[in-house]
Amino acid sequence: MGKGRVENFSDGVLAVAITLLAVDLAAGVPSKVPLATQIREQWPSFAAYVLSFFLIGAIWFSHHFLFQLINAIDQRLMLLNLLLLLFIVTIPYATATYADYALEGGADARTALLVYGGVMEGMAISRFLMAHHILRAGLIHSPVSKPEAKKLLFRYRFGVLIFPINTAIAILTSAPIMLVLHALVVVYYLGPGLRPITAGPDSGSLTTGATWNAPEP
Amino acid sequence: MGKGRVENFSDGVLAVAITLLAVDLAAGVPSKVPLATQIREQWPSFAAYVLSFFLIGAIWFSHHFLFQLINAIDQRLMLLNLLLLLFIVTIPYATATYADYALEGGADARTALLVYGGVMEGMAISRFLMAHHILRAGLIHSPVSKPEAKKLLFRYRFGVLIFPINTAIAILTSAPIMLVLHALVVVYYLGPGLRPITAGPDSGSLTTGATWNAPEP
Amino acid sequence: MGKGRVENFSDGVLAVAITLLAVDLAAGVPSKVPLATQIREQWPSFAAYVLSFFLIGAIWFSHHFLFQLINAIDQRLMLLNLLLLLFIVTIPYATATYADYALEGGADARTALLVYGGVMEGMAISRFLMAHHILRAGLIHSPVSKPEAKKLLFRYRFGVLIFPINTAIAILTSAPIMLVLHALVVVYYLGPGLRPITAGPDSGSLTTGATWNAPEP
Amino acid sequence: MGKGRVENFSDGVLAVAITLLAVDLAAGVPSKVPLATQIREQWPSFAAYVLSFFLIGAIWFSHHFLFQLINAIDQRLMLLNLLLLLFIVTIPYATATYADYALEGGADARTALLVYGGVMEGMAISRFLMAHHILRAGLIHSPVSKPEAKKLLFRYRFGVLIFPINTAIAILTSAPIMLVLHALVVVYYLGPGLRPITAGPDSGSLTTGATWNAPEP
Repeated sequence: MGKGRVENFSDGVLAVAITLLAVDLAAGVPSKVPLATQIREQWPSFAAYVLSFFLIGAIWFSHHFLFQLINAIDQRLMLLNLLLLLFIVTIPYATATYADYALEGGADARTALLVYGGVMEGMAISRFLMAHHILRAGLIHSPVSKPEAKKLLFRYRFGVLIFPINTAIAILTSAPIMLVLHALVVVYYLGPGLRPITAGPDSGSLTTGATWNAPEP
Repeated sequence: MGKGRVENFSDGVLAVAITLLAVDLAAGVPSKVPLATQIREQWPSFAAYVLSFFLIGAIWFSHHFLFQLINAIDQRLMLLNLLLLLFIVTIPYATATYADYALEGGADARTALLVYGGVMEGMAISRFLMAHHILRAGLIHSPVSKPEAKKLLFRYRFGVLIFPINTAIAILTSAPIMLVLHALVVVYYLGPGLRPITAGPDSGSLTTGATWNAPEP
Repeated sequence: MGKGRVENFSDGVLAVAITLLAVDLAAGVPSKVPLATQIREQWPSFAAYVLSFFLIGAIWFSHHFLFQLINAIDQRLMLLNLLLLLFIVTIPYATATYADYALEGGADARTALLVYGGVMEGMAISRFLMAHHILRAGLIHSPVSKPEAKKLLFRYRFGVLIFPINTAIAILTSAPIMLVLHALVVVYYLGPGLRPITAGPDSGSLTTGATWNAPEP
Repeated sequence: MGKGRVENFSDGVLAVAITLLAVDLAAGVPSKVPLATQIREQWPSFAAYVLSFFLIGAIWFSHHFLFQLINAIDQRLMLLNLLLLLFIVTIPYATATYADYALEGGADARTALLVYGGVMEGMAISRFLMAHHILRAGLIHSPVSKPEAKKLLFRYRFGVLIFPINTAIAILTSAPIMLVLHALVVVYYLGPGLRPITAGPDSGSLTTGATWNAPEP
């Protein structure tokens, strides 16, 4: 199956999901409350929107990074990719749930945290399984050294571990803490977690250079 | 007409349809019912969402598989593809109808089952007609042996037969049965129904290998 | 500017618009009216959905056909393409307006017909201007004979003339007539209006053959 | 990272955002007010829709123009592109807020103007930072002369300056003035602000010709 079309379909799903996030910001019908007050009271919606936007952005970066490494697609990769998309498509729902209930306090805030954390964990596990399968099934361009493969898998295993920890801390303390903790994860994935991996001076198989070359003419 | 642009447009439609499925999960305005209870009572929505997600995923896989076989596009293929997309775009509506009415029981549940089953049958027929036309009009890369063509058509004729049977069984027994029966169909289309077809040891025209090579550089 | 990216963006807009059409089919909250009755009473929504779906499909075919002829893009083509997309994006709104008001009768039905007809006319004019500009500015692969160019422009001038005529007839008779008249236009654009144009036995510049070859490898 | 996939994802986001604009035009449930009157009273929605449509169109043109110049992508460009998309995705929200509140007058109209102006300013700053980074990091095809680079940056610095000025004028005078002022900005970006840049007769590095050649075969 063509790598290009899998990327194309995944890009489409990610693009729609990231754009649907902002639909929940809708200011609603004019009410007696001043608009400025409405917006101020809506801050969890805005904060959750920005967080989820960069989370989906970071997932797209990971997806791009992984697909850049491979030169073949098998049936299992297609299925794992579909599983990843299942959770991505659910992110706007999880974001709306968090925005609507996180400040309510009590059991509802905890449920909203579990929904958001659960969707992120499902995404993280699918992404890890994808990376793991790509390395094990040899779908990659050139052979990878053990330390390189380890570094790559560590990146995605980190996500699997950190989302439940963040969720648990937020449940035990307060819901807005989740925004800060997840934001740190996003910073990791958009920063060091995106850098090309080099295991040593002469092993460049996962390195595409500090500046990536565009393969198009 | 360019095969690439037909794929691109179809990918776009499939990506939007699969992402819109989750819009109906919206938790709604905070009510007096605890969020956890709301979510528990919404289980038909979640189950229908997951089923329809993998159904659209399986349709995308079929679409990908069929377009990979061909090297030319004619007007009739364009029309059959448009007919297929018509039913795909209706899947979020059918899913929402099932989720809202399937547990109501009585005439409404039966109507909801007929809507969902009808949309799936329309999709299955369009897909079969597409596969049939591709083989008959010789839009395919290389000549296909009789048994290969038969195997390929069997895959899509199976869908045409199974969706009405599943719907009838669910109407005669109970609406949630449909989820289980359709899930089995999805498992078929994501598993054995996606495998390359080989009619014999030396006829490889519908085989793209256990690992598909990415045509991109 | 790259032809590929203009096609890609336009495909995206068309794919989202065609998928959003079905959002207005939503069956709504369970009410006391049986679902089967609700669906039967909603028939203008379904009929308008199917019509608009094939109308957008036919526009996509035209767009594809025109872009296949060209090998260069200029600023004016970009602007005309944007104008065309402006009207395409409004089709779901016009469809919902028709579905909600066409059967009301009286002034509201006439307004709804004017909205639908106006959006179609805006689309038809933009498309004609695009075709006209492509031929006049020489953005086309190979020189075109006079009769060929005339035939091509006739296709799109036909749309400019027929939509106001259909709308006027529907206003003077009854709103559902519009569905039938516009459906005939769609049949034209999906059938003879899509065929390659040949001015004579040896002039093949607008002919891409009865079977179009896929340019991809 | 591949330039093609970044363009593809950005095209998807822009296509969804531009199409979602029209969702807010929905005519709503039939009410006792005649449809024609409803539409007439909705004119700020239609005007804001058309303005935002061409604004997103102009942003797409800029994005296309900038990506056409480059032949490499680095991590910072990916992040700046994501920041740009964050503001683009918020445009439908800002448009709906303007349409709902701009004619209310008083504090709410001012808030709506600040929301719309703020989103545009965020977009303009991200776009300027992108252009600036592309030139400074040498991601461009061929070396650029100082005056050429200056001209290019002026284009996008202009946006950074003009949106707050327009917003301030509209706040001090009246909300509909914003539509006229922003429309002039759009005319600039779709007209002279899109033309190839030439610093002199022999420096053609930012010129792709009056007619751009399509890179596809």
